[in-house]
Amino acid sequence: MIKLNNEEEVFYNKFKELKLKSGSHSPSIISLMEEIGGTGIKVDACFLSNPYATEVFIDFFEKELVSTKKLHQIIEAYPPQNKEIALYLSQNINIPAENIFIGNGAIEIIQAILHNFLNGKIIVNIPTFSSYYEYVKNKEVIVFYQLKKENNYVLDIDNYIDFVKQEKPDTIVLINPNNPNGDYINKETINRLLKELIFVNNIILDESFIHFAYENIDLSMIDTYNWLKEFPNLIIVKSMAKDFGIAGIRAGYGIMQSDKVKKLLDTGYLWNVSGLTDYFFKLYSRPDFQKKYDVVRKKYIMNTLMFLNELNRIPNIKVYPSRANFALVELTDGSNATEVMIKLLYSYGVYVRECSDKIGLEGQFLRVASRSFEENIIILEALKSIYEA
Amino acid sequence: MIKLNNEEEVFYNKFKELKLKSGSHSPSIISLMEEIGGTGIKVDACFLSNPYATEVFIDFFEKELVSTKKLHQIIEAYPPQNKEIALYLSQNINIPAENIFIGNGAIEIIQAILHNFLNGKIIVNIPTFSSYYEYVKNKEVIVFYQLKKENNYVLDIDNYIDFVKQEKPDTIVLINPNNPNGDYINKETINRLLKELIFVNNIILDESFIHFAYENIDLSMIDTYNWLKEFPNLIIVKSMAKDFGIAGIRAGYGIMQSDKVKKLLDTGYLWNVSGLTDYFFKLYSRPDFQKKYDVVRKKYIMNTLMFLNELNRIPNIKVYPSRANFALVELTDGSNATEVMIKLLYSYGVYVRECSDKIGLEGQFLRVASRSFEENIIILEALKSIYEA
Repeated sequence: MIKLNNEEEVFYNKFKELKLKSGSHSPSIISLMEEIGGTGIKVDACFLSNPYATEVFIDFFEKELVSTKKLHQIIEAYPPQNKEIALYLSQNINIPAENIFIGNGAIEIIQAILHNFLNGKIIVNIPTFSSYYEYVKNKEVIVFYQLKKENNYVLDIDNYIDFVKQEKPDTIVLINPNNPNGDYINKETINRLLKELIFVNNIILDESFIHFAYENIDLSMIDTYNWLKEFPNLIIVKSMAKDFGIAGIRAGYGIMQSDKVKKLLDTGYLWNVSGLTDYFFKLYSRPDFQKKYDVVRKKYIMNTLMFLNELNRIPNIKVYPSRANFALVELTDGSNATEVMIKLLYSYGVYVRECSDKIGLEGQFLRVASRSFEENIIILEALKSIYEA
Repeated sequence: MIKLNNEEEVFYNKFKELKLKSGSHSPSIISLMEEIGGTGIKVDACFLSNPYATEVFIDFFEKELVSTKKLHQIIEAYPPQNKEIALYLSQNINIPAENIFIGNGAIEIIQAILHNFLNGKIIVNIPTFSSYYEYVKNKEVIVFYQLKKENNYVLDIDNYIDFVKQEKPDTIVLINPNNPNGDYINKETINRLLKELIFVNNIILDESFIHFAYENIDLSMIDTYNWLKEFPNLIIVKSMAKDFGIAGIRAGYGIMQSDKVKKLLDTGYLWNVSGLTDYFFKLYSRPDFQKKYDVVRKKYIMNTLMFLNELNRIPNIKVYPSRANFALVELTDGSNATEVMIKLLYSYGVYVRECSDKIGLEGQFLRVASRSFEENIIILEALKSIYEA
């Protein structure tokens, strides 16, 4: 069982103060670095993002904006409106613009859906991304569906369908792959679920991590957008932060029926994204960018596969099966997750997400992101080291 | 009376198509340039923004972010949360952090207020910024208070107070200086209004253009934030786009009672601004930036004074008195505002806002922004030229 030394204890107390200030989610790496000093953190393994994709974006950004005068314009001018961005994005993702809602990050889309479309009971599977219940205005309508630990927090689709039929909710949420455990439900299964649950008014399918999942050996991208025609109750939420490594820019989109998009745009969201987000979506719609992106997407998936494989060999931890860019790690030797997180951060410069605030997890858990090849080695060495010390 | 030539007519038709696509607000300058070619526009006088302040921001941005490795981090990492940014902003504006709501542009704050706090009737003075009525979900609760043309669209405060007392609304909105006419209500008058209207639940005071207004010869900044203690119904909305020349970044804040901030943050707005917005708010809180900013703020006010003075000398137009960075211009010779806008844009490269979509204006109106000294000369020459042709 892992214990903190004196220095780590002192640091732990500082960290608790910072945590109190920053609310329900992990303190941002920027805030932390300002508090404890920049050299403190070598690897941010809290952070679910493809670092190779960030490089691709920054290459374009530097060549096209910084080296020209265009950055000036992007900072100074009003960005295009939501509808205008949807227009050119529409050509890239092959969905009519009227079905696309541009979001200032996926979290704005989640908020927009829950505040505008939720009308009755919502079923949220736990463990999950907490905004899906925190952002519900009337907490009384939330019904949790507990993913079973004995089933590795994998969704038992038949049991779930029965549960939904019994509860008759207005809205359900599926994150695929799920956060924080990385479980991926394949297309065939989701398709079956959609057919069975056609009576639910809103089925939110959060595909924020879908670019890291795969069903074929060629790692080709999974596309579910054409389901919208068949299932009018479907709302797909897509973050761009993780797969494109651009969390600081804030970019996401939602795919939904046009009357829903209209409802949102009729009373809001006129200029809800920045000029830089607009630039990103323009890049995203370009074949030259997509080609470079797909190379680093596949590279990162391979990287993550190797990382998960090595993680699995470390004793005293259980790694839950994941097809996302992170792993849910259970500390099976009785160690405290927060203390292990603090030890990794303070003594090894490795920042991981401890999951004590995640409802629906039973035990001591860390969520560990896959980063670059070199960073993953540092993460693995740190974990091995604390279990050997 | 001004008429279009043939080429201008052809261009007009293209413009109408673009306008249809982009919804209720003016097409962004970026969209326009893509459509009609970059050389087409010399001066964007639609755009209410201090160009000198943009330069100051970009100087810091280039020195501190582009020339270092920090830009990479700002793009890649999650930005700090709303509460964290409020904490350091709090020290700069001398208001407790719990009273500050950080917005992704003022328009997000307007949306948040109208969707979350409006509970009954809202009085909106017209002409005004259209989001104040467009973003109201239930349009039936909107009551317009018509500013009188014979009074130059200046608010008659006693008449207004009587109107509010009679209507007994839940919420009222004051934009000071007002958009689109630039009328400024002095602090003493607003203070009187606040005392008289203490029974109104929400008094929205939009100060997005307040940095351009002045009450003293030294052009010192007008500060109303301490009113919050005395008037719990006050909500101050502040855009940063105009005065700091950074519309593309999206930044604003709201000052309001802490229970209101809490209500918003409890079910949303976790990471609602980008890393670049966070960087801007950090700059905004620094004395070295503030010092440079205040120089260009005053320079721009002087510039605008000269501009308004010259505008007033042009025949066949009436310039409404303004203490903002723009002027409402009435075409008094029977010319059509849209056609004059098209002529200025196509043949002179000067893009101005025509106001035919603004409810509450009676006649043909343009809204003309003050830009840099050199650009203002181009605007003035273009206007003089069409009236001499």
